[in-house]
Amino acid sequence: MSATVSPLAPRQYPDMPAIEGVRIATAEAGIKYRNRTDLLVMTFDAGTEVAGVLTRSQCPSAPVDYCRRNLPGGSARVLVVNSGNANAFTGRKGRESTDITGKAAADATGCLPAEVFLASTGVIGEPLDAGRFSHLLAGLVRAGRPDRWKDAALAIMTTDTYPKLCTVTARLGDTVVTINGIAKGSGMIAPDMATMLSFVATDAPIAAPVLQGLLSAGVGKTFNSITVDGDTSTSDTLLFFATGAAAARGAPRIEDADDRRLAGFRRALNRLLQSLARQVVRDGEGARKEVEITVEGARSARSARKIALSIANSPLVKTALAGEDANWGRVVMAVGKAGEPADRDRLSIWFGDNRLAFQGERDPAYSEAETSAYMKRERIGIRVDIGLGRGKATVWTCDLTKEYVAINGDYRS
Amino acid sequence: MSATVSPLAPRQYPDMPAIEGVRIATAEAGIKYRNRTDLLVMTFDAGTEVAGVLTRSQCPSAPVDYCRRNLPGGSARVLVVNSGNANAFTGRKGRESTDITGKAAADATGCLPAEVFLASTGVIGEPLDAGRFSHLLAGLVRAGRPDRWKDAALAIMTTDTYPKLCTVTARLGDTVVTINGIAKGSGMIAPDMATMLSFVATDAPIAAPVLQGLLSAGVGKTFNSITVDGDTSTSDTLLFFATGAAAARGAPRIEDADDRRLAGFRRALNRLLQSLARQVVRDGEGARKEVEITVEGARSARSARKIALSIANSPLVKTALAGEDANWGRVVMAVGKAGEPADRDRLSIWFGDNRLAFQGERDPAYSEAETSAYMKRERIGIRVDIGLGRGKATVWTCDLTKEYVAINGDYRS
Repeated sequence: MSATVSPLAPRQYPDMPAIEGVRIATAEAGIKYRNRTDLLVMTFDAGTEVAGVLTRSQCPSAPVDYCRRNLPGGSARVLVVNSGNANAFTGRKGRESTDITGKAAADATGCLPAEVFLASTGVIGEPLDAGRFSHLLAGLVRAGRPDRWKDAALAIMTTDTYPKLCTVTARLGDTVVTINGIAKGSGMIAPDMATMLSFVATDAPIAAPVLQGLLSAGVGKTFNSITVDGDTSTSDTLLFFATGAAAARGAPRIEDADDRRLAGFRRALNRLLQSLARQVVRDGEGARKEVEITVEGARSARSARKIALSIANSPLVKTALAGEDANWGRVVMAVGKAGEPADRDRLSIWFGDNRLAFQGERDPAYSEAETSAYMKRERIGIRVDIGLGRGKATVWTCDLTKEYVAINGDYRS
Repeated sequence: MSATVSPLAPRQYPDMPAIEGVRIATAEAGIKYRNRTDLLVMTFDAGTEVAGVLTRSQCPSAPVDYCRRNLPGGSARVLVVNSGNANAFTGRKGRESTDITGKAAADATGCLPAEVFLASTGVIGEPLDAGRFSHLLAGLVRAGRPDRWKDAALAIMTTDTYPKLCTVTARLGDTVVTINGIAKGSGMIAPDMATMLSFVATDAPIAAPVLQGLLSAGVGKTFNSITVDGDTSTSDTLLFFATGAAAARGAPRIEDADDRRLAGFRRALNRLLQSLARQVVRDGEGARKEVEITVEGARSARSARKIALSIANSPLVKTALAGEDANWGRVVMAVGKAGEPADRDRLSIWFGDNRLAFQGERDPAYSEAETSAYMKRERIGIRVDIGLGRGKATVWTCDLTKEYVAINGDYRS
C-alpha cells in the first residue's frame, strides 16, 4: 500500500452485494506490514465448484503448486490469502508452509485439504512462517460475513494504491445471478497468463468444467491483455468460485459449456474480468496514464496482439507517454522489432483521433498542437493499422515514470 | 550528447592509429544539433572490401535499405554518416534523400553509387533534407585525414555521453595488421541484431565473403549480447571495411573463411567488437552500473542466452540494481518467465561471489551485509545456474534509473 493513491484511482467504489454462500473475514496477522490487514479468509458453502488459471512461470510459488494440485477436484470450501510474502522460491519450507496452512484451514472449515485454495503475494524468496497466522484461521472462518468484499480487496494489496472491486449481474434462465470479483496487482504485471491475484465468485449453479472453460476463454482479452512492466509474476492466480446458491431461486444448473443460456453470463463475466484487469493497469506502479493500444490490419489476431504488446512493453514508448510526447517514431520502432509481418510503407498510426503517420510517412496534415493537447489526457489511445490483413487486438498498459523506478529501486529494503 | 557524462565512461581514450587506406573528415552541418559535428565522411582506397550486419527490424531506415542493396557488391569507397535524424519511416522522401546523398558521395569520391555506404541516427519520422549536407561532401572527401578516429566517433553521437573507440592488432602471416572501430549507441539498444551504429576498418587484405563470415559470427557474443532497454533500433548498422593495404607489407590475402591464418585476427576482431559493445552498455541512457549476467547449466547455449536476456531486460531486476538492492527474487521471476526449461528446485543464484540462492531456496549462509556492500559497486556480476545441462551464455546490460525516464520522457521535444 502506497502513501499516495494513483491519480487514475476510481472516484468511487461499487457497493458490493453479498454472494449467497460466500463469507469473508480479514485480519492483521503482522506477516510483514503493520497496522493493516494482511490475511483474507473466504469460505464457501458445501457444493461450491471452482475453476482457476495459474501462472505459467517455470518458478511458480508454493501456493500456485497447491492450487494446481486441488483444481482438478473442482470443489472449494475455503480460500486463504496472505499479503506481504509470496511464499515463492522457498523450496521445502514453502511446501511445508502450504501444507500446514491447508490442513489448518481444512480443520477450521470441516472440509478436506483438497477443498482448500491458497494464494500468497509479496516478497519472493523469504520463507513464510505459517505459524504466524494458522492459529487465526478457525476464528476467521467463524467470523465470516457476506458483506466484506471491500475488506477482502484491501487485505490482499501489496504496492497497490487502491482496492480493485467489480460486481455484475446476469440472467441465467429467468433468474438474476451475481458475479463479484476482487484483484490485486501493480507491478510484476505481464500478460500471457492470468496475471496477479484475482478471486471471483458467483451464486450461479455452474459445473466446474464449464466454469473452467468460461475462465480460460475470458482471460485472453482481459487479464492476458494487460501489461505494466512485462514482468510475469511467480504467483499469478485467478480463481472462480460458483456456490450454486441461486439454484434455490430457480437458476438452472449448467453442465454443458455450449449451453445457450450461458451467453449473458459469459458477457457479464468478461465485462467483470476486463474491469478488474484495467483497474490493475490503472494502478500500475508509478502510473499516471492509462494507455489503450489497438493494432488492426495485422495478418492475424495473434500477430496483432504480439505487435500491440511489443508497443505496450517498450520502455521508450512508455517513457514518451510519461513525458506527454507523441513520439510515434518509437511506435514504428516497436512495430518493427515485434518480429511479426509488417510493411513499413503501409503503416498508419493514430494517437486518439490524430493521425500522425500514414502509409509509411509522417502525415502531412498532422497538427502538433492538437496532438500535444491530447497527450496531456489521463487516458491515451494508440491505434496502429498494419495494412496487411484483418487481425486485430487491444491491450492496456500504463506509462513508465520516475516513480516506477523509485518504487522498485526501494521495495525490498 | 548529454551535459553529464556517464560515471561509467572510460577514464581515458585509446590513441587510435591510422588505418592505411582510410581517411576521415567531419563537419558541423547543423542537421539538428548546434555547435557540434554531426556529419562524418570516411573514404577508402580503391580495392577496399566490405561486409555488414543490419537491423532485422520490419521498419528499417532508408540508409539501412541502401546498405542492404550495396553490400552484396562487397566493394566500398566512401561512408557517409549523419547524426540528429535517422531518416527512418520517411517513405519516398527517405529514399530520395539516400539517393541524393549516395550520388553526391559517389561524385565526390569518383566511384559508383554501389560503392557508397550510408548511415543515419537520431529522431525517427522526420524527413532528412540531403540538401543540408550533400554540398559539403566533396570538400570533406578532399579534407580526409587518417588520424581522425576520435572525431569520427564524436560526430555520430546522439544521446551518447562519450565517444566509443577501440583499436587492436593481430598477426596475419608474419605481418602485424590493425583493426580500428567506433560505435554509437545509448538507448533503443537490444540484441538479436547488430545493434546501434558501428564502423570497423582494417588494413588486412581479406575478401568480402570472409569478412562477412567473421562479422556475422562475431556479433553473436558481442553486439547481439547487450541490451539497454530491449528496444531494437530501426537503424542498426555494423560495417566492416578492409582496405588490404597491409598486403604491401607482406600480409597474405585471405579468401577462404577456414584459413588457419585467420585465428589471431578473429580473436582480435571479437575482442574489439566486445569492447565496443560493452562501451555502449556502459553509456546506456541513465546507466550508473554495468551488469554482466551469466547463465549456465541451461539445456543449451541458446536457452541460456534467452534466460540471460529475460533477466537483463526485466525492469524489476534493473530498477533493483539501480537501488543497489540484491533482490534475487526478481531474478527468479525473470528465469521463470523466460519460457525456457528451468527447474525451480535446482536453481542457484550468485551476485558476485555471494551465493544468495541454492537449489531452490535462499542460501542459509548468505550474508546480507557482504552482498549489500557488493551491490554498491559500479560493475555487478549476476550468475545463475539452472542446474539442468551445460548451456552457457553471457550478456551485458545496465541498470534502469530515473535518469533513463527523464532522458526519454523528454528527448524529442
